Amino acid sequence: MSPAQETDCANASVNSRRHFLAAGAGIAAGMLPTLVSAQAQKGTTMNSRPKCLFFDVNETLLDLESMKTSVAEALGGRPDLLPLWFTTMLQHSLVATVGDHYDDFGVIGAATLQMVAKNQGIELSDDAAKQAISPIRSLPPHPDVKPALEQLKQAGYRMVTLTNSSQAGVDEQMKNAGLTDLFEDRLSVENVQMFKPHSHVYKWAARKMNVPPEDCLLIAAHGWDIAGALWAGWRGAFVARPGAQLYPLAKQPEINEPDMQRVAAQLLQLGTDCCS
Amino acid sequence: MSPAQETDCANASVNSRRHFLAAGAGIAAGMLPTLVSAQAQKGTTMNSRPKCLFFDVNETLLDLESMKTSVAEALGGRPDLLPLWFTTMLQHSLVATVGDHYDDFGVIGAATLQMVAKNQGIELSDDAAKQAISPIRSLPPHPDVKPALEQLKQAGYRMVTLTNSSQAGVDEQMKNAGLTDLFEDRLSVENVQMFKPHSHVYKWAARKMNVPPEDCLLIAAHGWDIAGALWAGWRGAFVARPGAQLYPLAKQPEINEPDMQRVAAQLLQLGTDCCS
Repeated sequence: MSPAQETDCANASVNSRRHFLAAGAGIAAGMLPTLVSAQAQKGTTMNSRPKCLFFDVNETLLDLESMKTSVAEALGGRPDLLPLWFTTMLQHSLVATVGDHYDDFGVIGAATLQMVAKNQGIELSDDAAKQAISPIRSLPPHPDVKPALEQLKQAGYRMVTLTNSSQAGVDEQMKNAGLTDLFEDRLSVENVQMFKPHSHVYKWAARKMNVPPEDCLLIAAHGWDIAGALWAGWRGAFVARPGAQLYPLAKQPEINEPDMQRVAAQLLQLGTDCCS
Repeated sequence: MSPAQETDCANASVNSRRHFLAAGAGIAAGMLPTLVSAQAQKGTTMNSRPKCLFFDVNETLLDLESMKTSVAEALGGRPDLLPLWFTTMLQHSLVATVGDHYDDFGVIGAATLQMVAKNQGIELSDDAAKQAISPIRSLPPHPDVKPALEQLKQAGYRMVTLTNSSQAGVDEQMKNAGLTDLFEDRLSVENVQMFKPHSHVYKWAARKMNVPPEDCLLIAAHGWDIAGALWAGWRGAFVARPGAQLYPLAKQPEINEPDMQRVAAQLLQLGTDCCS
């Protein structure tokens, strides 16, 4: 496909979840729908069970709302600036990565919060910036998360987290959210000192779990994370939380659902036989 | 320095341009000021003349205002969303880079404009998105740019552009802005298919001009570009245009001025002897 065709296909897929699901149903019925992901067209994996599920953490499992409140307060009561801050943080995590540098995600978060504040005429001290984002360590899970994870675990799926947060950060996050026992391991990009969606992160994580890339499936509420995983040869499930967007120029994942419960339902349809 | 100390130093430097300039004056007078860049502390290059000047294009040389108008219109008359779109575009240029993928910067710009629009409930067609960003090909130079470039050229500096725009894009931009003849070459990241600030882009550009990294100086209105150049062993001059911010976690450049004329004035103080 030309880039333009890929974009058209991607947009069509993103714009119509119903159409996408109808297409999926078509596959199950043995028909060939017009709108299917590249993976599905190849018929390689869509009906098979992935060997390991990798869960993104922030926003995917955990609700950022309580941090959003403190960040908006630090920006002078401007909740409308939150997407700009979060995007600036993600941008600079990659600025560091492509510049052969690494800082803790929280440090980058505080520094970029200072940048956004400064552009609004607000001088934010280092301490104030760190304080504003400190609630990230004690975020509650989204209400749809724990039941879904328990079902998937019961169905025999191997499950790990894979996050841009630091190792200490994700350890504390999972403990505070009461999710630690549901995962076999908690992988942090801190170990490779590159941020997602660098292709090496997915290669490293797959080897770490001793699973071939094509048997790995990322579950994430970030289009850029899904893009990176699919480009690295993984499978993907997008949790289309409010404000989340798939990247139109990337491959589209085989699962695209508005919450974790529905993502789990799709995965549970793939059978309950042991996956390791 | 610890990351926290670096941040403090960076913030202090960014927060007080006067202090920074006073520090520069101190160096000229042979004194050792407290606030100087890491390079200046080593005394390696700050008083020497760089062998080649690399100019970023968008926002640094050219005024994005006319594109901003059309983009804001495409977003339903929301000029406040422009920084979010521009940052999302930059983020996804790096998402592609770390994912071993490449698309034309304009294609990424249109795709990310669609994403930002969609989050506002606006469906933007491919054509409408491309149309909205099409003025990028015919941006005028900032009023301070042409006189400054002419002075630098007259002083014997080798000068090239180095941009994330495509090759055809920058060729057309320079022609429409009437700046083509002022530059020895127009380098586009399209040639290496990685976006700035990937360290390889600066290495490639330095080799392309046959100049060692330490003799290259980037002039840019983007803190992330300055960060990447300095991390790659280049020198830097920041054009602190409105809304531009240096990255607090990176090295700080030896020149930090609000417009190109003042950047040129600093460079012209380094003498007029031939630099090649």
